[in-house]
Amino acid sequence: MIEKTEKIIMLKDFYGPLLTQKQQEALNLYYEDDWSLSEIADSMAISRQGVYDLLKRAEQALADYEQRLCLLERFSLTREHLEKVFVLLSEKSVDQQKIEGALEILRAIDDLI
Amino acid sequence: MIEKTEKIIMLKDFYGPLLTQKQQEALNLYYEDDWSLSEIADSMAISRQGVYDLLKRAEQALADYEQRLCLLERFSLTREHLEKVFVLLSEKSVDQQKIEGALEILRAIDDLI
Repeated sequence: MIEKTEKIIMLKDFYGPLLTQKQQEALNLYYEDDWSLSEIADSMAISRQGVYDLLKRAEQALADYEQRLCLLERFSLTREHLEKVFVLLSEKSVDQQKIEGALEILRAIDDLI
Repeated sequence: MIEKTEKIIMLKDFYGPLLTQKQQEALNLYYEDDWSLSEIADSMAISRQGVYDLLKRAEQALADYEQRLCLLERFSLTREHLEKVFVLLSEKSVDQQKIEGALEILRAIDDLI
């Protein structure tokens, strides 16, 4: 279960370049730099309600992109798989069975990407 | 060096869901099913020029998405890395050096995704 803020930051990492400059700026200030709506409003010279709307539209766009492309889901799963391979191959004695296990997980990654 | 048709098909696999239904349909018929512009025009009940414009705009959108998100580039590189790991781990005798090599490549994948 990923927290909302964390999820938005991760979605922004994937889809940020598809948003407008203003949307990216507002998301960065609010979610990464932890500014208040009023502080962002002052900085961007728009109303507090304007900032709120900007953030809502940006979050909606991120959710929409994820629904279409599922990048966060695919990359998260890939990373989970990778972690398991690291564990298997980093053990002190890696036998053939562990290598087979690693290969199987790597094939799952190959199917994901 | 990826051929143009092949590249468009791969870009479509990544970004297709961000295109309109009509754009996706035209790309599928032209690049996957190898229909002519006239055949697509008949099927979609639009002019041949309309199909041409639809394809050009769709291709432009795909190129624009790739320029912003670089998914094809990242996934192609990830796949190349994976191939090397498969080779290393599929050899008859996998020694510690090969495992270290595989782990190094896997860390590169982890940085990419």
